[in-house]
Amino acid sequence: MSRVAGKPSGSDASSPARPAVPLRIAVLGLGLIGGSAAAAWRRLGHDLVGWSRRPATIEAAIERGIVGAGAKSAAMAASDVDVVVLAPPVLAMRDLLAEIAPALRPGTIVTDVASTKVAPETWASATLPAHARWVGAHPMAGKEVSGLDHVDPGMFRGRTWVVVPPPGAELQAVSVVSRLGRELGSRVIEMSAVAHDHAVANVSHLPFMVSTALSDAVIGDPDFPEWSTVAATGLRDITRLASGDALMHRDICLTNRDRIADAMARFARILDTLAAEVRALPDPDAASGTEALATMETTFVRAKADRDAWLPNAR
Amino acid sequence: MSRVAGKPSGSDASSPARPAVPLRIAVLGLGLIGGSAAAAWRRLGHDLVGWSRRPATIEAAIERGIVGAGAKSAAMAASDVDVVVLAPPVLAMRDLLAEIAPALRPGTIVTDVASTKVAPETWASATLPAHARWVGAHPMAGKEVSGLDHVDPGMFRGRTWVVVPPPGAELQAVSVVSRLGRELGSRVIEMSAVAHDHAVANVSHLPFMVSTALSDAVIGDPDFPEWSTVAATGLRDITRLASGDALMHRDICLTNRDRIADAMARFARILDTLAAEVRALPDPDAASGTEALATMETTFVRAKADRDAWLPNAR
Repeated sequence: MSRVAGKPSGSDASSPARPAVPLRIAVLGLGLIGGSAAAAWRRLGHDLVGWSRRPATIEAAIERGIVGAGAKSAAMAASDVDVVVLAPPVLAMRDLLAEIAPALRPGTIVTDVASTKVAPETWASATLPAHARWVGAHPMAGKEVSGLDHVDPGMFRGRTWVVVPPPGAELQAVSVVSRLGRELGSRVIEMSAVAHDHAVANVSHLPFMVSTALSDAVIGDPDFPEWSTVAATGLRDITRLASGDALMHRDICLTNRDRIADAMARFARILDTLAAEVRALPDPDAASGTEALATMETTFVRAKADRDAWLPNAR
Repeated sequence: MSRVAGKPSGSDASSPARPAVPLRIAVLGLGLIGGSAAAAWRRLGHDLVGWSRRPATIEAAIERGIVGAGAKSAAMAASDVDVVVLAPPVLAMRDLLAEIAPALRPGTIVTDVASTKVAPETWASATLPAHARWVGAHPMAGKEVSGLDHVDPGMFRGRTWVVVPPPGAELQAVSVVSRLGRELGSRVIEMSAVAHDHAVANVSHLPFMVSTALSDAVIGDPDFPEWSTVAATGLRDITRLASGDALMHRDICLTNRDRIADAMARFARILDTLAAEVRALPDPDAASGTEALATMETTFVRAKADRDAWLPNAR
């Protein structure tokens, strides 16, 4: 395996001590998430080797101290490490798994950072040798920017790191992957791949689709230049998710299609009910005391109460 | 007219000098918006009299220096001032206009702070005497809290104050109402009532309805306690508007019903198209290079580009 020496990052005055057991970690894919995690693990004392489809990205990661060394191929990076972290675009993951599979030593732990978990688990199960140990993961952190330029080793602090052991996963491998999340300051929770993909379809992917549809319907309308004179922070905030990475969300839709479609259908029915309540309203001069007015109010009070009750627990 | 003396607010060290022409201003309705505007105008040196349906609110506003004096009735408050500012719940506005109409001196300017403008203009036109001068207004500022307890005289700074002159409005009256907005640090723009209500239906009321439907569909779902372990800031931010005042939004729906229903229908069609694009996606292993994949990406790229182009101008 070929490694190129890189200068240590040394830019974080508050670098904690080396972990009790430093691991050799290969990060394959050096975008925002892969690069940020690599930089953070390296500061903790782990031994990081990086690989990206673009050689210039590997060089940049070494120059910036994000990884200690680069590898000429994904297989070479994965061939003599304790943990392989797959962080490419989701659609590239299947080929990447096939590429590294023959090179993995017995006992190597393979994990990932993809936003959906059923597809990676299926691919890993079909591709990896029996002597490698797959434990999926999803760090719930992101930004409206992407790429190595925006690497932020602190981005996982206080966030959730979902660990997704496949059926029959080895406890020791699960424990190592959990530890890697905790070391970056994340709260680690365990879920099955199906439970994860169902939950994120509702709390994460549906909000993105709604934000995107709203951006299309309002900001994308030919009349928007006229409307925008009265646009306030509400529109800006509710369309924030629409500024997320288009390719990443395309792949999320592809690998969580049915659950997202179901969540959108449920949302559309609720929106339709709400629209019917609006259309049922009488003229204002005849509204006082009508049932339609009370219904509208009840809906708004309920939605507000549900959210306000959750808010103290939201992160 | 009965006035009760109140101590001056005196709490703002940076109080600007008295305005060139101090006005006598009656604020009818002392909630978040009415109370905040009253406090801010008073600090600028205007002479403020306040009235609220609840006598205890008038007393509290005097005690806190938000107004200099209180009035026993809306008519008494409006009877000898230069400007009357109506700031009650929207549905109370028609009765309030009828109440003050007989008491208005010739030349009195009557304005408001309601979130919709066609209904107030219609009511004012039907109710006010010819010698009073109606010029509607809508300060585009708000919070997810309401009431006198949350009064914030700085809340209009840097925001938009929409001035809505009725057909044939007198320039001098329009100029006074514009000046009152500018004095609070707002950017003043003029629009017709119909143009205003159409614009806010799209950039403000539709986002609220979408935020509410999403809160209902996700946070209100029986499975949410399970999903919430992976909920991130995206869900929190996109449902922020749903925590807005339920009664205010009920009245907004009532007085802007058809335009909101139209905007919701347009949004629902776009969401439906998006859902169809998701359902059309192939299985991930057969996705590479398909038209469905390209379509999905194009949609996300377009929505992101539209929003990112607007963002530098968003306030």
